[in-house]
Amino acid sequence: MASRVLPTNFDVDYVISYRMPQDDKEAGITQFKKLIRGLAEIGLTTEVRRGDETSLLVFVRAADEKIFADVVYRSRIKDWLHGVRQLQPSNDPAQTLTSEPLTVAERHRHIHHMICCPREEGGAGITPKHSEWKNVEAVFPLHDHVKNKAWLTEFTRKTFLTPGDLDEIRNTVGEKIGYYYAFLQSYFSFMIFPAAFGFSCWVLLGNYSPIYAIVNGLWCVVFIEYWKRQERELAIRWNVKRVSLIEDKRREFESEKVTTDPVTGEKVAYFPAKKRLQRQLLQIPLAALCVVALGAVICICYAIEIFISEVYDGPLKSILVFLPTILLTLAVPTISNYLTGFAEKLTFYENYETQDAHDRAMISKVFVINFITSYTAIFLTSFVYVPFASILVPYLDIFGLTVNAFAENEKQLAAPSPAAFSINPNRLRNQMIYFAVTAQVVNFAMETVMPVVTQRGTKKFKEIKSQRAEKHGGTTPSVADHDPPEEKEFLTRVREEAALPEYDVTSDLREMCIQFGYLSLFSVIWPLTPVSYFINNWIELRGDTFKLTVECRRPNPARADSIGPWLDSLEFLAWLGSITSAALVYMFSGGDGQGPDGRPHAIKLWALLLSVFVSEHTFLLVRLLVRTAISKLDSAAMRKERSERFMVRRKYLEEAGLGHAVRPLASPPNSPLMTESGEHAFASITKQSLEEDARDQSVSTSSSAESATERFWMRQRNWAECERVGLAMIDLMDLGTHKGKKVQ
Amino acid sequence: MASRVLPTNFDVDYVISYRMPQDDKEAGITQFKKLIRGLAEIGLTTEVRRGDETSLLVFVRAADEKIFADVVYRSRIKDWLHGVRQLQPSNDPAQTLTSEPLTVAERHRHIHHMICCPREEGGAGITPKHSEWKNVEAVFPLHDHVKNKAWLTEFTRKTFLTPGDLDEIRNTVGEKIGYYYAFLQSYFSFMIFPAAFGFSCWVLLGNYSPIYAIVNGLWCVVFIEYWKRQERELAIRWNVKRVSLIEDKRREFESEKVTTDPVTGEKVAYFPAKKRLQRQLLQIPLAALCVVALGAVICICYAIEIFISEVYDGPLKSILVFLPTILLTLAVPTISNYLTGFAEKLTFYENYETQDAHDRAMISKVFVINFITSYTAIFLTSFVYVPFASILVPYLDIFGLTVNAFAENEKQLAAPSPAAFSINPNRLRNQMIYFAVTAQVVNFAMETVMPVVTQRGTKKFKEIKSQRAEKHGGTTPSVADHDPPEEKEFLTRVREEAALPEYDVTSDLREMCIQFGYLSLFSVIWPLTPVSYFINNWIELRGDTFKLTVECRRPNPARADSIGPWLDSLEFLAWLGSITSAALVYMFSGGDGQGPDGRPHAIKLWALLLSVFVSEHTFLLVRLLVRTAISKLDSAAMRKERSERFMVRRKYLEEAGLGHAVRPLASPPNSPLMTESGEHAFASITKQSLEEDARDQSVSTSSSAESATERFWMRQRNWAECERVGLAMIDLMDLGTHKGKKVQ
Repeated sequence: MASRVLPTNFDVDYVISYRMPQDDKEAGITQFKKLIRGLAEIGLTTEVRRGDETSLLVFVRAADEKIFADVVYRSRIKDWLHGVRQLQPSNDPAQTLTSEPLTVAERHRHIHHMICCPREEGGAGITPKHSEWKNVEAVFPLHDHVKNKAWLTEFTRKTFLTPGDLDEIRNTVGEKIGYYYAFLQSYFSFMIFPAAFGFSCWVLLGNYSPIYAIVNGLWCVVFIEYWKRQERELAIRWNVKRVSLIEDKRREFESEKVTTDPVTGEKVAYFPAKKRLQRQLLQIPLAALCVVALGAVICICYAIEIFISEVYDGPLKSILVFLPTILLTLAVPTISNYLTGFAEKLTFYENYETQDAHDRAMISKVFVINFITSYTAIFLTSFVYVPFASILVPYLDIFGLTVNAFAENEKQLAAPSPAAFSINPNRLRNQMIYFAVTAQVVNFAMETVMPVVTQRGTKKFKEIKSQRAEKHGGTTPSVADHDPPEEKEFLTRVREEAALPEYDVTSDLREMCIQFGYLSLFSVIWPLTPVSYFINNWIELRGDTFKLTVECRRPNPARADSIGPWLDSLEFLAWLGSITSAALVYMFSGGDGQGPDGRPHAIKLWALLLSVFVSEHTFLLVRLLVRTAISKLDSAAMRKERSERFMVRRKYLEEAGLGHAVRPLASPPNSPLMTESGEHAFASITKQSLEEDARDQSVSTSSSAESATERFWMRQRNWAECERVGLAMIDLMDLGTHKGKKVQ
Repeated sequence: MASRVLPTNFDVDYVISYRMPQDDKEAGITQFKKLIRGLAEIGLTTEVRRGDETSLLVFVRAADEKIFADVVYRSRIKDWLHGVRQLQPSNDPAQTLTSEPLTVAERHRHIHHMICCPREEGGAGITPKHSEWKNVEAVFPLHDHVKNKAWLTEFTRKTFLTPGDLDEIRNTVGEKIGYYYAFLQSYFSFMIFPAAFGFSCWVLLGNYSPIYAIVNGLWCVVFIEYWKRQERELAIRWNVKRVSLIEDKRREFESEKVTTDPVTGEKVAYFPAKKRLQRQLLQIPLAALCVVALGAVICICYAIEIFISEVYDGPLKSILVFLPTILLTLAVPTISNYLTGFAEKLTFYENYETQDAHDRAMISKVFVINFITSYTAIFLTSFVYVPFASILVPYLDIFGLTVNAFAENEKQLAAPSPAAFSINPNRLRNQMIYFAVTAQVVNFAMETVMPVVTQRGTKKFKEIKSQRAEKHGGTTPSVADHDPPEEKEFLTRVREEAALPEYDVTSDLREMCIQFGYLSLFSVIWPLTPVSYFINNWIELRGDTFKLTVECRRPNPARADSIGPWLDSLEFLAWLGSITSAALVYMFSGGDGQGPDGRPHAIKLWALLLSVFVSEHTFLLVRLLVRTAISKLDSAAMRKERSERFMVRRKYLEEAGLGHAVRPLASPPNSPLMTESGEHAFASITKQSLEEDARDQSVSTSSSAESATERFWMRQRNWAECERVGLAMIDLMDLGTHKGKKVQ
């Protein structure tokens, strides 16, 4: 498992893993030829080696730095046209690489783009696992083991990542993952406050404290608004502002018809938006299906659990109590996988033109499914079990029929009378502790420890198998036997990396988003929640780094200027939190896990609704204020960006020979009136002389409309005369002070 | 009043009205000279004529079309740099005017910009009524009387304006007013539906119909979202997309210090955002003051009114009943003017850098003041009077003390006992009818008829005065006496126009916004409201046209890409409408103006809150859906814009010698393996030969890291060899089908 550090990658830019199809060798060979030729055509050098038993590894390197510089230059022009870059790249492609050196991630991104973008746009058009390229199993860069090892040790030593570390991550694996780390880092740092405050509340105020709820809600708002701003600042820092506007066509997009654009004359694949909208309406039944399918399973398991743990008192109780958990563990992932598959199909059916729109649509569906699987149980406890348990629990008797056989006597099974039954006051808190602590530990184990164990196991199993095969027949030669000795170690490592799964940053973001949901929706139940998450997130970041660098293939770098649609999810959860927190505080504060006066049915609906109403609208108002305040604060990065933009504009205006301060010179006076003394010589102009002037002209010329205009403008031949006439007119005025006094 | 139509404007572009100060003639003269010289310096020709007794009219024309073309060219470059124009203007300023002729509004805008923009940016820097230019009373273009007359007659004949009419408005008075007309037009057309539906509801379902409330809420959402889209389409049509991003500096902005920008080296006037934020916090006490001052006055008048009309039964009732109305009519405008002045001062104090930000801040304050003055009374009736009248009215007794003297006997004055008092069920409806009909008529009269009457009156008064003066002394010469006869008529008209007030599109928009508020918040009270507004708005549009063309000076054209912050107000009102409508329907449906079962105190708070909660969240959900749906629909304008953008991008990529389909040619094969037959010649390559190849090279060269890399990439000398080796490797594979079968 990459425990050895191999310092060299033999200058390999990318590796393509080509799996020979088992059934059609001829087709496999044809396609392989096409692959090699395609790569050669766009100027990439290739070397081929054996992968595992039935696959080949094609090593790719940018052969000609000039061709590669062209690719980079073209991409920069495109960036500039989309407003990602301020300055138009200089016209000399040769200077592209020297004037602005590429980071590793950028180099990888360009090579990946060359390999994968369509042939019409100058790429090899290889789409891994899709249509004619379904034999291409993976296209991936190689890990930098030295750097990876350094990261792991460095991050483990630090509490907080520095901006430099984030830059380093971005330079190595691209902005998309960089944004995830930046988010996790911001979230973690911000968590200090609720962790400390939550701990104090836990000590001083206990659970369900309204003060905690208010502070927590405020924190959620401030964090989200702060992060939005942080996103923008990072976009400036990483030069990715507006990259989300560069819309890469989805290869899977199926146009209904190809029309010719009347303006550009270009062939355009067209799919009517109305038709897509109709297809999107299918999301409503899908959401309903999610609610019904998942909701039903969770509700049933929940009911069984309550029945067994709190009503049932028959034999095998100690075993039966695990039944609902087992059912849940089996059913929920199955159903949710099934639904996710369904959602994926629907998203494909919706047929988006761009990858971005596709991902966005998919994420919103995934969020709905995750929302239901994550929060239904605790919603049930809060808003169904606690207020209505005494009414509903007796009905759980219907299960009694099935358990009847095991029950020793009627008494054991009989549901308690409503008066006798008392709700379990600690259930809600225990559930929250489970989500805040146990679930996080389990999750970490599943996500980070499990893959290691599985991979080690598989490796061991293969080794044993091949050893046994050697013993029995000795005829199965290892593919590594043909490796040149100096490449042996390297190729072994590449084979291992090729076998690793892809790193999916979306699922990590989803996890954080769900965690934020627990915090905003339910943490008022147990104020230690943020403390637990604070600790968890420290480990999470290191675990994710381990996953990214050791357990997964190196990801293809992608650009991003935001964490994308997850931001909307966070906003939604914070909003919903303002509702649930208020309801929980109203319902449970005072007692511990019980209604205001100890009995849940003493909850007054109007008071509950009023607290929710007030809380929600206060939340919205505060959010507006915080948003306005934060948006108005200036930052160094933003100032810098503005200055740069200004520079660009000034440059253009100056290039156009029209700097902003350029002005025509004052026209020279045509009359000798300019001198100070001369100016007053004509100040004594009289009413008569003015009138005569006018009459002179009105008589001498003809009176057509055109010449009237001409005459209008020729009365005062230049600005000096205009000034003179104006002054004469002023002299004729009856200005209160001077003349008025004279007359008197 | 411009009843004569004068076909010529003597090619005058702009008129500057210069008022001589009464107290300081010298300063007036100096400034006048500065004005004339300033205009001449930037290339404008001037002619001066007498205005009224103490003012001069300076007629301005772009003297040199070349200089003017330069100005236009510079503005276009600026537009292009801000992304308003797609295409970079060609480098030849001389072609600017011929290649793309200007509309009248554009010409006016450029001339106005020349006159008013700061000297550093190449303008004359004249700021009417401000600092050193406080003598400059107005800077305005002249009306086109022929076109104005045509508009008035044409609009009166039409029910709906065509897009062509809107274009015409935009071409004549600029985009800002164009947007107002477009909004009014969309609003009017959209109103057909609620008018028809409201009428049916009124006939079939009566007041407070839940169905009407739902349809009305939905209509509000759809209208706002439709308008937002319409705004974007108009921005494309009128080429003003993103103009709001061109931030013109506010001349009144006062910087705290002037810093030198480290990037540009430019001097930058700096005012810290934090300080502004602190100043903005003063908005909170201002808002509180508005609520208290206006709210108190309205509440007191309201209480007096109820007391007099419904409790008091003493003498002079028929007169006293008008007392609250008189109080309200006197107090509210006074207070609200005072508050507006206060808001203006605060907005100046907030010291915004751009005019846009300043206007935005002012409008939000004006909205708060208007919201309170417009809706408080009806809010009081709905949510205080009706539910609590029986409890509160007895307390109105305190007024009894003051009226005591007039009361004839105790009985007349005694407040009725709570049981005896019954609320007036028609009060709310009558109030709504007042706002829907009476207030609109009064408003129209105040806005359109009053100015005509006042202006006519003033004119008459002046005429009578001068006639009387002639009779008595005969020495007061009219300023018009010196006019050349052929200009007499023209100058009379210009003097009239100079005396007219400015047209303020903001107040017209505000009026529509307030009307929309009544519709969304309270129209469920009386479903004929939209019918009344429908009729009103037809008249409103014509009235506004009359105001624009006859009663006001021709406005300085301004660009805009939206109706601005009013859109936010509309959204807020629609949202609030979802709350008030639900509450009103719950409280009043069933009875007519009474609670669900006839008695208002039978209103259940929980049910009220629940209906509000459900209604509000349904509204938000529906809004999200409508917004998503509308944003996804494509339009011809948007497609056109995309195509144009695409063209621009392609042009650049092609200019850069890298059209998107350019690709390096396939590298020629270095070996003779290319032919079909040749390709298979080497297919029989054996494991041995491959290994030998590798060993050869590993032995022959030294084993430093660099040369290892070299060797790695030299094993296959070109793509053809790479392909050959790959095929050989495939042959060695144990592919299930072929070989597997062979082995068996």
